[in-house]
Amino acid sequence: MTSCWGQHIHLSLFGESHGPMIGAVIDGLPSGFSIDETQIAAEMTRRSASGKDLATPRKEADRVTIVSGFFNGKTTGTPLTGIIENSNTHSSDYEKTKNKMRPGHADYTAFLRYGGFQDYRGGGHFSGRLTAPMVFAGAVAKQILAQKVPALSVGSRIVQIGQVRDHSVLTPSDYAALTYADRTFPVVKRELQDAMIREITEARAQRDSVGGIVEGYITGVPGGLGSPIFDNVESRLASFLFAIPAVKGVSFGIGFDISGMRGSEANDAFRVKDGCVVTSTNHNGGINGGITNGMPIVFKVAFKPTPSIAQPQPTIDIAQHKNTEIEIHGRHDPCIVIRALPVVESAAALCLLDLMMEADGRHE
Amino acid sequence: MTSCWGQHIHLSLFGESHGPMIGAVIDGLPSGFSIDETQIAAEMTRRSASGKDLATPRKEADRVTIVSGFFNGKTTGTPLTGIIENSNTHSSDYEKTKNKMRPGHADYTAFLRYGGFQDYRGGGHFSGRLTAPMVFAGAVAKQILAQKVPALSVGSRIVQIGQVRDHSVLTPSDYAALTYADRTFPVVKRELQDAMIREITEARAQRDSVGGIVEGYITGVPGGLGSPIFDNVESRLASFLFAIPAVKGVSFGIGFDISGMRGSEANDAFRVKDGCVVTSTNHNGGINGGITNGMPIVFKVAFKPTPSIAQPQPTIDIAQHKNTEIEIHGRHDPCIVIRALPVVESAAALCLLDLMMEADGRHE
Amino acid sequence: MTSCWGQHIHLSLFGESHGPMIGAVIDGLPSGFSIDETQIAAEMTRRSASGKDLATPRKEADRVTIVSGFFNGKTTGTPLTGIIENSNTHSSDYEKTKNKMRPGHADYTAFLRYGGFQDYRGGGHFSGRLTAPMVFAGAVAKQILAQKVPALSVGSRIVQIGQVRDHSVLTPSDYAALTYADRTFPVVKRELQDAMIREITEARAQRDSVGGIVEGYITGVPGGLGSPIFDNVESRLASFLFAIPAVKGVSFGIGFDISGMRGSEANDAFRVKDGCVVTSTNHNGGINGGITNGMPIVFKVAFKPTPSIAQPQPTIDIAQHKNTEIEIHGRHDPCIVIRALPVVESAAALCLLDLMMEADGRHE
Amino acid sequence: MTSCWGQHIHLSLFGESHGPMIGAVIDGLPSGFSIDETQIAAEMTRRSASGKDLATPRKEADRVTIVSGFFNGKTTGTPLTGIIENSNTHSSDYEKTKNKMRPGHADYTAFLRYGGFQDYRGGGHFSGRLTAPMVFAGAVAKQILAQKVPALSVGSRIVQIGQVRDHSVLTPSDYAALTYADRTFPVVKRELQDAMIREITEARAQRDSVGGIVEGYITGVPGGLGSPIFDNVESRLASFLFAIPAVKGVSFGIGFDISGMRGSEANDAFRVKDGCVVTSTNHNGGINGGITNGMPIVFKVAFKPTPSIAQPQPTIDIAQHKNTEIEIHGRHDPCIVIRALPVVESAAALCLLDLMMEADGRHE
Repeated sequence: MTSCWGQHIHLSLFGESHGPMIGAVIDGLPSGFSIDETQIAAEMTRRSASGKDLATPRKEADRVTIVSGFFNGKTTGTPLTGIIENSNTHSSDYEKTKNKMRPGHADYTAFLRYGGFQDYRGGGHFSGRLTAPMVFAGAVAKQILAQKVPALSVGSRIVQIGQVRDHSVLTPSDYAALTYADRTFPVVKRELQDAMIREITEARAQRDSVGGIVEGYITGVPGGLGSPIFDNVESRLASFLFAIPAVKGVSFGIGFDISGMRGSEANDAFRVKDGCVVTSTNHNGGINGGITNGMPIVFKVAFKPTPSIAQPQPTIDIAQHKNTEIEIHGRHDPCIVIRALPVVESAAALCLLDLMMEADGRHE
Repeated sequence: MTSCWGQHIHLSLFGESHGPMIGAVIDGLPSGFSIDETQIAAEMTRRSASGKDLATPRKEADRVTIVSGFFNGKTTGTPLTGIIENSNTHSSDYEKTKNKMRPGHADYTAFLRYGGFQDYRGGGHFSGRLTAPMVFAGAVAKQILAQKVPALSVGSRIVQIGQVRDHSVLTPSDYAALTYADRTFPVVKRELQDAMIREITEARAQRDSVGGIVEGYITGVPGGLGSPIFDNVESRLASFLFAIPAVKGVSFGIGFDISGMRGSEANDAFRVKDGCVVTSTNHNGGINGGITNGMPIVFKVAFKPTPSIAQPQPTIDIAQHKNTEIEIHGRHDPCIVIRALPVVESAAALCLLDLMMEADGRHE
Repeated sequence: MTSCWGQHIHLSLFGESHGPMIGAVIDGLPSGFSIDETQIAAEMTRRSASGKDLATPRKEADRVTIVSGFFNGKTTGTPLTGIIENSNTHSSDYEKTKNKMRPGHADYTAFLRYGGFQDYRGGGHFSGRLTAPMVFAGAVAKQILAQKVPALSVGSRIVQIGQVRDHSVLTPSDYAALTYADRTFPVVKRELQDAMIREITEARAQRDSVGGIVEGYITGVPGGLGSPIFDNVESRLASFLFAIPAVKGVSFGIGFDISGMRGSEANDAFRVKDGCVVTSTNHNGGINGGITNGMPIVFKVAFKPTPSIAQPQPTIDIAQHKNTEIEIHGRHDPCIVIRALPVVESAAALCLLDLMMEADGRHE
Repeated sequence: MTSCWGQHIHLSLFGESHGPMIGAVIDGLPSGFSIDETQIAAEMTRRSASGKDLATPRKEADRVTIVSGFFNGKTTGTPLTGIIENSNTHSSDYEKTKNKMRPGHADYTAFLRYGGFQDYRGGGHFSGRLTAPMVFAGAVAKQILAQKVPALSVGSRIVQIGQVRDHSVLTPSDYAALTYADRTFPVVKRELQDAMIREITEARAQRDSVGGIVEGYITGVPGGLGSPIFDNVESRLASFLFAIPAVKGVSFGIGFDISGMRGSEANDAFRVKDGCVVTSTNHNGGINGGITNGMPIVFKVAFKPTPSIAQPQPTIDIAQHKNTEIEIHGRHDPCIVIRALPVVESAAALCLLDLMMEADGRHE
C-alpha cells in the first residue's frame, strides 16, 4: 500500500524514473539541527554514476532542493522535503518494449499489482532512481546523528563482487579504525580490489552483470536501543534494507555463518574493560534480543546482479500473452554495488535516528 | 516500543516466560472462517519440546484457549485472542543468577532498555516461549488461507544443522511435491538427516549447542501481492522472521548465493506455459520488485546456536559491574531449529494473510 | 480493521460481552512505575453498576487480573495485560431476538460489516462492556502520570443530563480547585444535581432513557505536547473519545459556543504571571494549533441516551428482511453518563501518557 | 510527530506558509482512476480567497502541479504528489513581530514544541495555507469516489456564522436533494444568508472576526464501512477534521443536541422500504456502533473566529518573557468558514475513500 517507513521519523518517497521529479518527505525529525547542503551533495554524488566505467553512463546532477522543514540552516522539526528533478530521461527507450516483461525486474509484478496502469517507463516508481531520495534522507540523518552522538559513525565496505569474496572477520575495535585504499571502492583486503573490478569489467564485456555483498556498520552506538519481539533493531533495519532494489538477503553480525557455529563460539562474552561493558567478538552484530548492546551494529546485504543486461533473454509479451525475446538497451550498471554503498549507509543512519527518537528529546 | 506486527491483520503478543500466561491478540481477521482447534493443537505440539532427546525436556501442555473473536466455530472478525497458561516454571532457577548476564542472551540489553525493571526470570518477554503465541496465530492464519486459497500451502525444511548442509536447489515445481522421510525432521537430502542429528547429539554431549538454517516456502501464491519500496513482501516477511529469537539472517530465493551469479543466470525468465505465466528457475524466490510473481515464495532463515549452554562462560555481574563466570543450568535445547519450523511457517502464513487482506474482502 | 489505539503507547482491546473474558494489552509503557491494584479496583468500581437505582442492576465484580508486564509491583515496560472474566451473563436473553436489529445499536451495522458472523450476544465486541478494559488501562495511565508529573490531575464533571444543563464556565484556575458535593455525581452547580437525577428516574419510569454531556479536564499539563496537523492533541484525544460507545460529539475549551464568539473574545491572551506564561480565559481548552499551552486541557463529550429501552420500538427482522417490532428486556442503564465518567478520564489519561512518551524517557 | 493521516490511503503534507512550496503525497490510492485537473483547480478556487470582501485579499493562483503517481490521465497507484508554489508571500510582515505570540495562534505552542527553531513566518507549517494540499487531496479522492460509487456525493452547508444559526433539521432524503441559492455561500434557510454575511462584514468593520459551524454530509454511502472501537468512522473522520486549523468541535448526526433527547426519540428506527433498509430520522448521522448504516453521514464542525484580528491585543514577548501588546496587520479573513467548506468536504472524501479501500480492490 504505502511507500513510507519509520516509527518515530517517518519517511515518505515519491516519484517515478521518468516523471518530472522524485523526492522525499521526512517527518518527525528533531528540530534545531544544522544541515549542510554540501554534505548532502557529496552523498548524492557517491550514489550517482561514478568512476572508471564501472557504472551507468546516465549522468544526472541529482541536485536536491530542500523545500520545507528547513529554516535558517536548521531543521524546524516539521516535515523536511527534498526534491530532485529528473533531467536526463530517454522515455522513448521504454515505449517500444513496454509489453515485454524484463526478467528479474518488476515489470510483470507491477502489471499484476496495478492492473496495467503503472508508469512503465524506466521502471517507474520501482526504479533504482528512488534510491536518490533515500540517500538524501540518509544524508540528513547522518548529520543529525553526528550532532546528537559525536562518537557515532556510519560506514560500509564491499565484501563480495561476483565470485570474489573478502573473508576478513573484524573485531569490534577494528570497525572504528577502518581505512580504505580507495574510498569509492572500499575493500578491507586491498589485494582483492583489482579482482573485484575485473569481475565487473568482464561481465560488462560479456553484456552481462554481477552482484555483490555490502557490509554496513555503525560504531559508537548507544546501548539499549530497540525493543523486543517485533520492534527489534534487526527487523527495523532489515525492513529498510529489503526496500533497496536488488537486495535479496540481510544478515547481522557474522551472518549465515553463525548457523554453523557452536554456542560456545557464537556467544559474545561480556567483559568489563576500562569501566565499560564490551565484548571481544561481535558475532551477534551489536544486537542481543533485538536491542543494541553498545558494540558496532554490523550487517551484510546481498545484492543480486543488475537484471538489465544487453544480451537477448527469453520472456513474455504481456499484451499478447505469449513467449518472446527481449534485448535491453539503454544505460545500465554492470554492477550496482558501488552505487549502493551510500544507500545502505542511509538505511543504517535513518534506522538509528528512528531508534534514538524513541528515547530522546525533540530538539537540539 | 511495541510488540505488534502487521498492516491489515494486527498481531499483539503478551506475556513473560514465568508469568501466569502468555497470549496473542489477532485483530483484523476476516470473519466467517472455520477454525479447528485440533489443528491449532497439532501446530502447538510441533513447537513444544519433542522427539528423540533433541530438544528441551521442559514439557508444557501449551494448550491454547481462545477467549474472544470466535463464535459458533468461526472467526467473528473482531480481535481473536488465545491464551496459554505457563504451568511448568522453575523461577528459582533464575533468581540466583539474575545479575549474571547470560552471553548471547538479552539479559544485558534488556537491563539497559528497561532500566532493570524487566522480568528477568527465564528471559521474561524475550523468552523463546513467546513463539508459542506466534504459532497459535500462525495456525489460525493457515486455516484461513486454506479456505481462501485452497491451492496455497505453507511449508518448511531443514537446510543446515551445525556444519551439515543440504545443498539441494529446488525448482518451482519441486516445492509443491516435497515429501519428507520424517516430517518432524524434514530434510530433502534424506541421507543427511543422521549426520544432522549427530551434530545435535554431539553438541549436547559436549554441553554445547548448534544452530542451523531453515527454508520456508509457500506454494500456490497469488501473483501481484505486496507493494513497491517499503511495503514490499521481503521487508514485511523479514520483519516478522527477525522477531523470532535467535534469527540472525533472512534471504529470499537462492539467497546470498545470488550475489555470486551473473545477471543472465540470476534472472528468472518468464514463460507462458499452459496459459499461465511461470518461470523455470526461482532464484528470486517468487518476488520481483517486492511483489509476488506467482511462483513459490522461498526464503532462508539463519538460526544461531542456542545461547544457553551448560559450560562455564565468562561474563559480567551487572550489579557489581565486574567480570565473573556463569554456568547455565535448567532445561535448554541443544538446537532450536526443529522447534523453529512451525514458527517460521507461522511467520509466512501471517504475512501472506496480511498481504491478502489488502486486496480482498472482509468475510468468507 | 483494528481495535487498537495510540502512537507511543499502544492499547489493544479484546473480548465480547458474553465471551469468557475481556481484556486489554497495553504496550509501550515506561518501565519502573508502581501500579497499585487497589487503585485500579477503585476505578473499576466507579465504572460498574452503581448508586441509587440510576444504573443497570447487572453487577459484575470486574476484577482485573494483571497477567503480564508487571513484576515486583512495577511496570516492566513490556506489554501489560489485564483480563476481566465475564461472570454474569444471560446469553439466552439475546438468542430469541438475534434477528431483530435493536434501533440505535450496532446490530445492523455489525451484520453488514461481519456478514452475520459476529457474536450478537449482548452486542458482542460492540458492547459497552468493552469500556471496562478501557478503564483498567486508564487507571494504569493515571498512576504512571501521577509519578511522572505529580502536579498533573485528570478529572471529569457532569455538564448535562437530559434537558438539565449546568452552564458554569470555569477559568483555568478553577479547575485545580474543583470539589463536588457527591463525587459519584460530580456537578459544579450543586443545585442542579437533584434535577439531573430526576431526569434519569423519570426516564426510567417511562421505560425510556436520557443522554448527557460530560466535561473532562486535565490540570498541570506540560506545555508543548502534541504536533501540528494530523498529530494534534485534539485529533488524538477525540479519536479515543469517539471510540466510547454512545459518544456523538467532542469539543474542546468552550466548545461549539466558540463559533458564536468574536475573535477578540475567543482568543485567550497570553500573560506572564509569577514568571509563568498563563491565560486568564481558556476558551481554547489548553490547546493552540494542536499543541498544549500549559493551561488545563478541557473537553466536552456528548453521550446519546442509552439505545436499549423497554418500550416497544419498530425495527426490522434481518433474517426475514421485513418490518417488525422489538421490546428490549434485560438489564440496561437509563443513563450511562455516570458510569461514563471514569471512561472519559481514562481516554484523557491514556492520551496524555501517549503524548508524554513522545518526548520523555522510557523508564522511571 | 507526523503530519500524516490515513490507514489505507496515506496522506502526507509538507511545507510552510512562506517557504517555496507546499504539497501533499497521497499513497495507497487505487490505480486506473481518471483525474481531471480542471476539477482539482475548481476545488482549489473554492478554497482560495473569494467573494464579496468576505475573505482575505491574499490571492494565490494555488495551481497544483502533479509530479508523481499520475500517468496517461490516470492514477498509477503509486504515491500521487501535488505541489503548489507559494507565490505571494510578504515575509517581512512577520519578522518584526516574531517574538510577540499572537493570541489564539500556535506561535507560543510551536515555540515550546520546537524549541524556537520553527519557521515562524505566517505560522509556518501551522498556517491555514496547509489546507490547500488538503483540498488538492480531497479533490482527487472525490473523483475516485465518483468513479467507484457513482451514487455517492459529498457536500457541505453553513449552519452558523457568528450569532446567526440555521436550525433546519434535515431528513435522510433531504440531503440528496439539497440545493442552494448561492453555491459559494450554501445556506439551507436562504433568508438567513444576508444576516450571516452581515455578521462577517460588521466584524470586519470592527477589526474583529467571527466563527461559524459547517455541516458536512455524504450521501449514497455504502453500509458496513468502518470497524468497532478505535477504528470507528467517527474517530477516523474526526481525527482529520480536528487537523483543520480553527476547528474546536466535531459532532455527528444531530450532534450535541442528542444529549437532551430521550432514547425513544434519538434511536433511528430501521425500516424496510422498497426492499432497502432505511431509517426515517438520522439522529445518529448514518453511523451506528462506529459503522455506516447506509444513511447519509452527517457531521458538524465548529470553527472558532479567525484569531488574527487588527485590534491591539495583550500578549507576551517570548524573547523578553514579559507582557506586551500586539497589533496584527496583513491579510486575514474576518471569517474562514466559507473557505473552509471544501476543506471539510475533503476530509469527508478522503475518509470515505480510506474506509472503502479496506474492503475493496486496488484498481479500477
